[in-house]
Amino acid sequence: MVEEEVSMVDITSKPPVYREASVRGLIKLKPQTINLIREGKIKKGNPFETAKIAGILAAKNTSQIIPLCHPIPLTHVDIQTRIVDTEKIEVFTTVKTEAKTGVEMEALTATATALLTIFDMVKQYEKDEEGQYPATEILSLKVESKTKKSSS
Amino acid sequence: MVEEEVSMVDITSKPPVYREASVRGLIKLKPQTINLIREGKIKKGNPFETAKIAGILAAKNTSQIIPLCHPIPLTHVDIQTRIVDTEKIEVFTTVKTEAKTGVEMEALTATATALLTIFDMVKQYEKDEEGQYPATEILSLKVESKTKKSSS
Amino acid sequence: MVEEEVSMVDITSKPPVYREASVRGLIKLKPQTINLIREGKIKKGNPFETAKIAGILAAKNTSQIIPLCHPIPLTHVDIQTRIVDTEKIEVFTTVKTEAKTGVEMEALTATATALLTIFDMVKQYEKDEEGQYPATEILSLKVESKTKKSSS
Amino acid sequence: MVEEEVSMVDITSKPPVYREASVRGLIKLKPQTINLIREGKIKKGNPFETAKIAGILAAKNTSQIIPLCHPIPLTHVDIQTRIVDTEKIEVFTTVKTEAKTGVEMEALTATATALLTIFDMVKQYEKDEEGQYPATEILSLKVESKTKKSSS
Amino acid sequence: MVEEEVSMVDITSKPPVYREASVRGLIKLKPQTINLIREGKIKKGNPFETAKIAGILAAKNTSQIIPLCHPIPLTHVDIQTRIVDTEKIEVFTTVKTEAKTGVEMEALTATATALLTIFDMVKQYEKDEEGQYPATEILSLKVESKTKKSSS
Amino acid sequence: MVEEEVSMVDITSKPPVYREASVRGLIKLKPQTINLIREGKIKKGNPFETAKIAGILAAKNTSQIIPLCHPIPLTHVDIQTRIVDTEKIEVFTTVKTEAKTGVEMEALTATATALLTIFDMVKQYEKDEEGQYPATEILSLKVESKTKKSSS
Repeated sequence: MVEEEVSMVDITSKPPVYREASVRGLIKLKPQTINLIREGKIKKGNPFETAKIAGILAAKNTSQIIPLCHPIPLTHVDIQTRIVDTEKIEVFTTVKTEAKTGVEMEALTATATALLTIFDMVKQYEKDEEGQYPATEILSLKVESKTKKSSS
Repeated sequence: MVEEEVSMVDITSKPPVYREASVRGLIKLKPQTINLIREGKIKKGNPFETAKIAGILAAKNTSQIIPLCHPIPLTHVDIQTRIVDTEKIEVFTTVKTEAKTGVEMEALTATATALLTIFDMVKQYEKDEEGQYPATEILSLKVESKTKKSSS
Repeated sequence: MVEEEVSMVDITSKPPVYREASVRGLIKLKPQTINLIREGKIKKGNPFETAKIAGILAAKNTSQIIPLCHPIPLTHVDIQTRIVDTEKIEVFTTVKTEAKTGVEMEALTATATALLTIFDMVKQYEKDEEGQYPATEILSLKVESKTKKSSS
Repeated sequence: MVEEEVSMVDITSKPPVYREASVRGLIKLKPQTINLIREGKIKKGNPFETAKIAGILAAKNTSQIIPLCHPIPLTHVDIQTRIVDTEKIEVFTTVKTEAKTGVEMEALTATATALLTIFDMVKQYEKDEEGQYPATEILSLKVESKTKKSSS
Repeated sequence: MVEEEVSMVDITSKPPVYREASVRGLIKLKPQTINLIREGKIKKGNPFETAKIAGILAAKNTSQIIPLCHPIPLTHVDIQTRIVDTEKIEVFTTVKTEAKTGVEMEALTATATALLTIFDMVKQYEKDEEGQYPATEILSLKVESKTKKSSS
Repeated sequence: MVEEEVSMVDITSKPPVYREASVRGLIKLKPQTINLIREGKIKKGNPFETAKIAGILAAKNTSQIIPLCHPIPLTHVDIQTRIVDTEKIEVFTTVKTEAKTGVEMEALTATATALLTIFDMVKQYEKDEEGQYPATEILSLKVESKTKKSSS
């Protein structure tokens, strides 16, 4: 049997303080798809707005998606999207709360969900003739910064 | 007002056929963390088993995480994890079903969730002195193959 | 691309205070159906008790149903149902909390869900010969009052 | 104790056939708010796109929101929004499936959620000086049509 | 690292057939509480109706509660409650479907949730002076029968 | 119509204090199955680790599973599993929080879910030749202790 037993960190005695985390993510798409996004011609709807909504909902549901995350009363989720160049889109998320533990997993979950939603919104343009996705790839997902500040 | 209106693809008239999708994902961790995983010494529990369970649950919940995905009765989800080298871990997911539409978003959502869960399980070892994560990064998430076969 | 970017209101710096919201809703049913409810003869079960339970569960899940709502630790949800006249039923909901933002969306979501559940419980009696619902209609859903009180 | 016992309809022996349901809903807002929507100036984001996404997600989650609804593999959800006049917005939803039971509850749940989301997106403009909503009201929610067709 | 790797059973190639499972559960309460239930005097509401609704919802959500369960389109859930004697209540659940795998976990999850809900509805009467529950206990949860029948 | 109306307890005015609850549960399995668990040979994966993860997730989701439970920000969930003898496994759960109401329902829900997950993980070894489960039974689920302490 395993030595490592699954266990949630006990945060009972930690004081609730202001916490913030920012995460950056990057997805590679075909240049033609980036053009269609730029021109507002994606048939399933605006990929950026849909991605933001999906990401915000996922941030709030993190403690049901990542097994050992504590439930945290998020006070703000901000998701920005940006066309970086002819084949890359960036998602940048900031999550804020006043809680006993940090919110980097919430920001990561929101950003991953936003990137996956962009993939879903444009996947019909990314497929090749055999129905494969040779060009599409999430290239990076990284915590940019984490802040903790006592409220006093 | 936007030109692009959000709309779900209508799959009513498509016949249900056998469908499969495989997705590969990669996360970069510190070599010390990889060693701790190898030795079974991660304090929060086995990161690979926890990641697999989180990924399987997420695959089954994809139509609530990605807004325009159809609900699909998955018949199999398999998630494999592997230490690639001194600083990379790979997650490889295969999803199967008999349905009117493909399961690449389910495989992507499962893999992303498994990678995020690995991050969460080891994050205490990845933090530097200032509580930041300079080394940790999801490096890739990509559909490896997608198959469709009429059941006859 | 859209000018309006989806964004959650930042409530981080607001103090948690006592908050209450009341919502009234009205559904029109056929007089025969109202009679069956009065006599306790609805085959699928008591529509009022089922509606209250569904409404309470929905109130607690509002931040997953309405995309930009903050998660709020509700401390009370009360749902009252009443036969108004021969063809109308009223649902009246009060939600209470101590939080950084108001709970009118929680009370609205609970009331809408309770009304929809009443519809579902009695829909077999509301159908005409062609399976249509010419008489059934949710007639109103309105915030009756909203209160905010500093706890001191 | 109650005579009416809660019970789910047994649909085991019904054949799966094509099913469709359409629902119309109406919300009353202040003329100034309608103008802001028309001009694309709602600060929280585009209310129509957000409402559509929330409605589609709710349609797919109906069997968890309305207690006695069966889980149904929806194959299409379409939500249209329209400014009716200087103070009314209409939401019109069509849901399709191939299933053993109808989808009117799914179309109703989607439409109610879309209307509530519009409310949430514009509520800052609807409040009066005392923080009340004297003008805002969901005016109607009604099944427009229900269709059942054997697939042969 | 563990030898046993978490893996979902692959049911892709199994034909969908009629399936049924029945589960019996038993909870022990104080005789005074049983009397209050009998007289319809439980302050939080009818424990049997609330338990049935909670159980039906849980049955439909089993694949999100039990990690390796497949999503199954349930066609019927029936939950019966019965006062067995002066200190025991029985919950008996039958679940039906037409699917590639059995529904005993769905029937077990529904029954467990119904028993827990009964506990919650009456817990104020079960507490002793020190706030403990010396008498209350779920005594049994057992699959009574499982049926599989090819539909031809 | 019912006398007993479903109603959530109003906890608005209660102060948040430290709360803890412990629950013990017991499941009976066949001796051969217990041996397979001991030897780490369960084909679907480690039943104890999977049960712990399922239990922790369920604890955090209690207010959506048990209708009248308040949402509570859990600060710790600990689940221990133990082979008691040749045919019994014990699950022991402790839940902690700082909240306006107790967490015994959270500890009960976690334990029940862990026991059900163990059942699911080993059910292929528990079936007899006719696909029935004559030996398998959840034998007990009981609150061991409940603590409340003002934080000052």
